[in-house]
Amino acid sequence: MSVVVGANQYGKAEVRIVAVDRATESHVFCDLNVGIALSGDLDDVHVTGSNANVVPTDTMKNTVFAFAKQASVGEIEEFGLRLGRHFVSGFEPIKRARVQIESSSWKRIPVGREGRGHPHAFERAGSELRTATVVCAADGEWVLSGLRDLVVLKTSGSEFTGFVRDRYTTLQETRERILSTAVTARWRHAGVDCDWAASFTAVRALLVDRFATTHSLSLQQTLHAMASAVIGEREEIVEVRMSMPNRHHFVVDLTPFGLPNENEIFRVEDRPYGLIEAAILEQGAAAAGPAWDPYPFL
Amino acid sequence: MSVVVGANQYGKAEVRIVAVDRATESHVFCDLNVGIALSGDLDDVHVTGSNANVVPTDTMKNTVFAFAKQASVGEIEEFGLRLGRHFVSGFEPIKRARVQIESSSWKRIPVGREGRGHPHAFERAGSELRTATVVCAADGEWVLSGLRDLVVLKTSGSEFTGFVRDRYTTLQETRERILSTAVTARWRHAGVDCDWAASFTAVRALLVDRFATTHSLSLQQTLHAMASAVIGEREEIVEVRMSMPNRHHFVVDLTPFGLPNENEIFRVEDRPYGLIEAAILEQGAAAAGPAWDPYPFL
Amino acid sequence: MSVVVGANQYGKAEVRIVAVDRATESHVFCDLNVGIALSGDLDDVHVTGSNANVVPTDTMKNTVFAFAKQASVGEIEEFGLRLGRHFVSGFEPIKRARVQIESSSWKRIPVGREGRGHPHAFERAGSELRTATVVCAADGEWVLSGLRDLVVLKTSGSEFTGFVRDRYTTLQETRERILSTAVTARWRHAGVDCDWAASFTAVRALLVDRFATTHSLSLQQTLHAMASAVIGEREEIVEVRMSMPNRHHFVVDLTPFGLPNENEIFRVEDRPYGLIEAAILEQGAAAAGPAWDPYPFL
Amino acid sequence: MSVVVGANQYGKAEVRIVAVDRATESHVFCDLNVGIALSGDLDDVHVTGSNANVVPTDTMKNTVFAFAKQASVGEIEEFGLRLGRHFVSGFEPIKRARVQIESSSWKRIPVGREGRGHPHAFERAGSELRTATVVCAADGEWVLSGLRDLVVLKTSGSEFTGFVRDRYTTLQETRERILSTAVTARWRHAGVDCDWAASFTAVRALLVDRFATTHSLSLQQTLHAMASAVIGEREEIVEVRMSMPNRHHFVVDLTPFGLPNENEIFRVEDRPYGLIEAAILEQGAAAAGPAWDPYPFL
Repeated sequence: MSVVVGANQYGKAEVRIVAVDRATESHVFCDLNVGIALSGDLDDVHVTGSNANVVPTDTMKNTVFAFAKQASVGEIEEFGLRLGRHFVSGFEPIKRARVQIESSSWKRIPVGREGRGHPHAFERAGSELRTATVVCAADGEWVLSGLRDLVVLKTSGSEFTGFVRDRYTTLQETRERILSTAVTARWRHAGVDCDWAASFTAVRALLVDRFATTHSLSLQQTLHAMASAVIGEREEIVEVRMSMPNRHHFVVDLTPFGLPNENEIFRVEDRPYGLIEAAILEQGAAAAGPAWDPYPFL
Repeated sequence: MSVVVGANQYGKAEVRIVAVDRATESHVFCDLNVGIALSGDLDDVHVTGSNANVVPTDTMKNTVFAFAKQASVGEIEEFGLRLGRHFVSGFEPIKRARVQIESSSWKRIPVGREGRGHPHAFERAGSELRTATVVCAADGEWVLSGLRDLVVLKTSGSEFTGFVRDRYTTLQETRERILSTAVTARWRHAGVDCDWAASFTAVRALLVDRFATTHSLSLQQTLHAMASAVIGEREEIVEVRMSMPNRHHFVVDLTPFGLPNENEIFRVEDRPYGLIEAAILEQGAAAAGPAWDPYPFL
Repeated sequence: MSVVVGANQYGKAEVRIVAVDRATESHVFCDLNVGIALSGDLDDVHVTGSNANVVPTDTMKNTVFAFAKQASVGEIEEFGLRLGRHFVSGFEPIKRARVQIESSSWKRIPVGREGRGHPHAFERAGSELRTATVVCAADGEWVLSGLRDLVVLKTSGSEFTGFVRDRYTTLQETRERILSTAVTARWRHAGVDCDWAASFTAVRALLVDRFATTHSLSLQQTLHAMASAVIGEREEIVEVRMSMPNRHHFVVDLTPFGLPNENEIFRVEDRPYGLIEAAILEQGAAAAGPAWDPYPFL
Repeated sequence: MSVVVGANQYGKAEVRIVAVDRATESHVFCDLNVGIALSGDLDDVHVTGSNANVVPTDTMKNTVFAFAKQASVGEIEEFGLRLGRHFVSGFEPIKRARVQIESSSWKRIPVGREGRGHPHAFERAGSELRTATVVCAADGEWVLSGLRDLVVLKTSGSEFTGFVRDRYTTLQETRERILSTAVTARWRHAGVDCDWAASFTAVRALLVDRFATTHSLSLQQTLHAMASAVIGEREEIVEVRMSMPNRHHFVVDLTPFGLPNENEIFRVEDRPYGLIEAAILEQGAAAAGPAWDPYPFL
């Protein structure tokens, strides 16, 4: 029986870094969680244990810190490209680098009568994260921007009817339900040069706008409306992938207590939940290469 | 050996409810997590298993849903009082009710040119929670308002010097460090009648303002500045308790890479963390009774 | 308005330490999570920011590591006493020290034909944690031993009947239900000298035995049976406190599919859950002093 | 700009079910977490919102419960195949079904002098989960077995030397370090007919044995030793994929306290961590088809 090494990658995950820019009286800082995964000529380390081709994951961590100092971090897509290119160009055995970055958002604490933002005191602006995934290889570079934990809810404008029924179906059709989800979305850029901040702001605005304004016939259709608006209106984006759990809100039966309940009182269930996932693409979009490969693997 | 039953309580925890008010075109809703704990003449259920004095926890859950329908939920302190009084007055063996409520905040999704709030589409406004703890008993009622997971950070205006040194001390004094914490705060009201919403807004504003504007000599002093501002400026509040983890941000040593690091690049450590906790009171404040008893117990 | 500092404590939480004893070929190690909280003459640091009485939390962390080297860690109760006494006796302003330790359990990986334990390879033996809480002060010392996340379940021998009914009660009586909980228990020792390991083993065995063998009329009665066995059979223990969530398993209605369901198929709900908490004591037990004070505070 | 629907799937995630077999006095039960994802002719629901091809996720949940009653659940791979085949064969538009199951393990509580296992009282046997992933489609069926959260640690027999050094490298070579990881592993079966229970037991034993007995030169080499033993010794397995975080244990510098530390006292860091991932295959193994496609997507 002969055994071979298949796809593999290794790296450092969850490097937590805060980088403060003190150049002006009003400080600016970024708060990142960086993961790096490298692949290449790494059969040997698996089979014989030789580390001759292995860049230590500790070095990857150091590189994140040093790069953050050597030049302004900038947008996370840029920082990912700087890091990815470094590992692919700097080490002969390394053929591909994947850099994944999550960024927390903060806002200035308002102080004084006018509530002006304090120059160096901040509060977290929510649990939503902005994300970037960058893959650098000899044959191409790919950038995915994204967000996680964007939690949204509609109290009206959502129905679910006309579905398949079989002997295990008990669900009633509904013309009015609460629709709620925690959006994970990532979108693929056509190139690697972009006004990343402006693009992110515009994409996010489209996503929430379409969630709000689309009358929902299913969560799939809502997803499609959100994603296709991005493809349609943002030239720089060629593909959007979304994962949207359906956070079920069930109407509580209040009849035992002699009370009506016209879609007013809901219990919220954590599990199980529906899970809707799709890729929406521009027709003829270039191949995505390894951009969407899972990280972690399993 | 004689065995006795000591302090005890039982109830339903984490009743997740969403209540939508559809009275106007622009919907309003609240998103709550409600816990109820009762105590009283309950030795018997422990010793003999007789449930004659036991209000089922399932009934508590039903009551939360029914009460949310029977009258507008209103502020969480009010809803807690309605529930607490019901259990204490409605069941002879029940002598004390503790109601603990967490409320998530949401904001309207902005749509259209002017970014007006959508009448029935919302996004979560962060992971911070507003909390209320209400204790109702024959001999009194107590209300604590509060918040959790208010994450704040200062890039300047924080030092730590002049501390005790012993043979295990390696920490250097610092005149400039990042100070960051996730505030858990609860404050005790003098009475049970209050403009709860206005009070909450004012207290929260004082807390973040003092975090921002106090030059910090220690996290304890920052805590005291925050809490004592509330005691000093808000007549309705007689005690503030806070728990503040010190989320350590360590300056990364970049000298191996030939780089300076003047408080610019920090690594963030999850564990261990400092934990600073204190009660700050108005002198002569009435006794707190069971208000601060832990829930859960252990 | 005069403001005073009330109860307060500060310290280092979640110091994660692994200590390996390599004295014999067969290694032994302990895997601990240590928290320390000190209180005493600390008004000044709150009010003026003077750190003259403040032992840095960083020093507490260092002390944990140094103490683990200076002498064998031993049982967690012992280690807690060594640490607690050090802080109270070594620093004049410090009047009370609380040390809280969680210990993970590991077992040797079996290798070879006979499955003998490997001398230095281990696997985690579950997520249950053994805990110790030690409080040292001028006027006394207290030791609580305990455990967390002991998850147990009965497929039979549990009923719930004869409870209070009101207009909000819909729950049916049941003579047969699944009973499941994740036990958090802590027990107070009469003294501070004990064969801690043997005592822990015996108490844990009593707890699970009584859970298994007691026909349950309510979770309160089960709790009492478990705790009172400990009080009754273990001289060294004077009080047991337990917190037991009722992890509801609901019989699924299969009648729409033409199927019976005689307590066979259950759905498991995470939230809401019942929460049953009680202290069970030996009559005449000495006062617990600050042993049970909450940590963290809020 | 034309927009197309790419890869997509939808389903119900985290159906928590406990199924008790009461056929004999000694009860047996399984405790599962089931996820189902379907794909097929689903463009329409995305584009127009027509649910004509949509099997509701609620029906999937019902089916899990009904199937668990109609026949014994059996091994999780079997249960997955039953469910997967049902959805693919029962609904014309559904072309592929992915079923993912996690199973918790429990053991009988020992009671009485001899510590015999109680017939219907159980305790959780750890947090490790056994997993199965089944994919059913018109053109094939694939079964992956696996496990998650198998936490292992070696106090000796692990080194890391001879790695690439660059200007950002500060890591020292080491001939003796703690190696610890939480194994996630999945392995692909050659077919869909197997003694699943025996196979799982054998594979797990090989994994932990090789972790214990392989002198580690790198975590990659350890992973390879574990996985290739499975490929080499288990005919039914053609591919193993593993994801292994390197849970760093750092030697604490005790020299400031005048103490040696010869690999005895370690601090444990949660983040960042190394992450080592690889697929190890039998040479010439059949193509894996969609077996390893990520679920969830993002």
